Amino acid sequence: FSGNLSHVGETIFSKMTALANKHKAVNLSQGFPDFPVDPELIERVHFYVDKGPHQYAPMAGHLAFRQELCKLSDQEFASPYQAETEICITAGATQALGTALACAIREGDEVIVFSPAYDSYFPMIELYGGRPITIKLQHPDYNVDWNQVKRLISHRTKMIIINSPHNPSGRTWKEDDYLKLQELVGDSNILILADEVYEHLVFDPKEKRSVRQFPELRKRSFVVGSLGKTVHVTGWKIGYCMAPENLMREFKKVHQYFVFSINHPLQWALADYLPNLDLNSLGKLFKEKHDWFFRNLQERTRFKPLASEGTYFMLIDYSEISQEPELAFAERLTTEFGVASIPLSPFYRDPVDNKVLRLCFAKDDQTLEQGVDALSKL
Amino acid sequence: FSGNLSHVGETIFSKMTALANKHKAVNLSQGFPDFPVDPELIERVHFYVDKGPHQYAPMAGHLAFRQELCKLSDQEFASPYQAETEICITAGATQALGTALACAIREGDEVIVFSPAYDSYFPMIELYGGRPITIKLQHPDYNVDWNQVKRLISHRTKMIIINSPHNPSGRTWKEDDYLKLQELVGDSNILILADEVYEHLVFDPKEKRSVRQFPELRKRSFVVGSLGKTVHVTGWKIGYCMAPENLMREFKKVHQYFVFSINHPLQWALADYLPNLDLNSLGKLFKEKHDWFFRNLQERTRFKPLASEGTYFMLIDYSEISQEPELAFAERLTTEFGVASIPLSPFYRDPVDNKVLRLCFAKDDQTLEQGVDALSKL
Ligand SMILES: CSCCC(=O)C(=O)O
Ligand SMILES: CSCCC(=O)C(=O)O
Repeated sequence: FSGNLSHVGETIFSKMTALANKHKAVNLSQGFPDFPVDPELIERVHFYVDKGPHQYAPMAGHLAFRQELCKLSDQEFASPYQAETEICITAGATQALGTALACAIREGDEVIVFSPAYDSYFPMIELYGGRPITIKLQHPDYNVDWNQVKRLISHRTKMIIINSPHNPSGRTWKEDDYLKLQELVGDSNILILADEVYEHLVFDPKEKRSVRQFPELRKRSFVVGSLGKTVHVTGWKIGYCMAPENLMREFKKVHQYFVFSINHPLQWALADYLPNLDLNSLGKLFKEKHDWFFRNLQERTRFKPLASEGTYFMLIDYSEISQEPELAFAERLTTEFGVASIPLSPFYRDPVDNKVLRLCFAKDDQTLEQGVDALSKL
Repeated sequence: FSGNLSHVGETIFSKMTALANKHKAVNLSQGFPDFPVDPELIERVHFYVDKGPHQYAPMAGHLAFRQELCKLSDQEFASPYQAETEICITAGATQALGTALACAIREGDEVIVFSPAYDSYFPMIELYGGRPITIKLQHPDYNVDWNQVKRLISHRTKMIIINSPHNPSGRTWKEDDYLKLQELVGDSNILILADEVYEHLVFDPKEKRSVRQFPELRKRSFVVGSLGKTVHVTGWKIGYCMAPENLMREFKKVHQYFVFSINHPLQWALADYLPNLDLNSLGKLFKEKHDWFFRNLQERTRFKPLASEGTYFMLIDYSEISQEPELAFAERLTTEFGVASIPLSPFYRDPVDNKVLRLCFAKDDQTLEQGVDALSKL
């Protein structure tokens, strides 16, 4: 039996976390925090685990939770969505991405993808018969070459997937990027899938931007967000998609048959908790971790860190330490030196090997200290 | 914008539950219990909410949880699966069904579906370019006509979806049905998607059967199960798929990009709890409810109930009360008489109207009493 994705392997995230666990390495690979969840949120969970609901949530999600998420979008980007019709809660951001693609992509459609790209984009596009058109972001800046985008847009272009703050580079798009994109899609029917799961993890508040702020983009965008990333609970698998009603209506038709609905008690807990969420201190927390990690990598190791502007990832260049291919080097770093990372090559479609690894710094100070210690041995 | 499922409407389950809530009707429509969750399970949830894990579960699920589910399969059907390679935890059974179809169905593939059928089968088959070949189960017996199956199997048949205990009829397949199926697929490559979400809700233990007991079927089957149905927590959205390794390997390749992983703390709680699960008393509980409900509908109302052998559903025939179409009658029953049900017509592809509704009896005695009272008014 050969399945529709028989050509893909195990995701690099599973692979590296499993290797980290096996070798008891410091796990800076898969993107998840290792610090505790806010006790106030935990208290809310206990409350609804006792009281219920334990049966099916409404298909699009618990209304109060949707309302809080819409408020948050408005607070951050002056871009309100209608809780009744323009948002759907999903089993994590990954499900939201897959559902938007399932709803929009047909045989022969072209989808523009900037790589390095989160590893679900390519196979999910292909599952629906789409053709990924790749645009490479050049190391070490990872800027978009807008002339190339212009050249690659065709009458077959159904969708453009954008991702800022960008996983894995940690770079954020500037005002000008959005304006360029707006200009290019201006009078077309091209859709946008905006992976904004790190929207609240931007270090400089002035650099927070979203596709939602640009009317010509907003009206054609599926915007994907993640509670896992925002409130440090990646294991709860709660994300969402926001889109104008004419897009969201179609999204929900697929969603209702993909999973129908999402964990109910957790939605009630999060609805209560979201008004307490302090976005300023969230950005600050990650800025401090970023700056500490960057400085210490620079001063105490031979790796060359690249500064990020958002996300909880940082790239490190090891070209002065080894010429091994990324995957082999990442494995050896785990098994021999006790630090798990993510090689960048699986984020590309065609072979690219810049001798770059991605590290996750959403970790306790002690974990980061251990990570730097281990990396200083090379 | 016209999405890939633009031709479908809102699921009948959302529609009827929303109508029930709006009119404060007794909700016997969507399939979920209204009695409390076992306090022992709740206690386990509190434990892991305090202690964690709160970050990503392994992609295929928490190993101890998978092991318990494999043991349960062996205990019920003398059919063990390998926890490491032959099971994957999903965001509810609906996601497992969709993932199996996504993994197997290509443009032009035919999929045999027995209708009335759970409403996600048809659109999910079509989303992947498949063509549903429908075989009608005749009211009021809902038996399979095996000669018809034989006639409809072709070289294009990629998969047969089977569902026993059957939603909505509550009927279970007999030994002979499985043997007939085994004979028909014998030396073909036809796959089976076995929706067994009500596997543990069979009233007579001697009538418990699974595709897993028949080697020629087992080796080609994706078997889908549901914790929501088994431990009364439909709102947690935890299901699973079991299949031989060569099928499961392909299933997981899709799963990892659909949702990646499932709620982590709940998997730990369920792993601890499953050894306590008393399957005998589960079957007994639902048998008692079934028998009480059947008797009272028969004695106190003009509806004609059809006995079920499993699931928590019962069909009622209203042809002697009204000639209204099913949907209209179900709506009026909700708004005027205060009882929400599920009309059967949405479980068919082509117009079928047998004047039959489905009621869910997984309810507290008091709820069932209220339901019968209201139905006795007609
Ligand atoms: C779904 S596992 C991957 C988590 C993540 O977003 C990342 O590490 O890039
Ligand atoms: C996913 S909502 C439908 C629940 C159910 O299984 C049913 O009512 O048939």
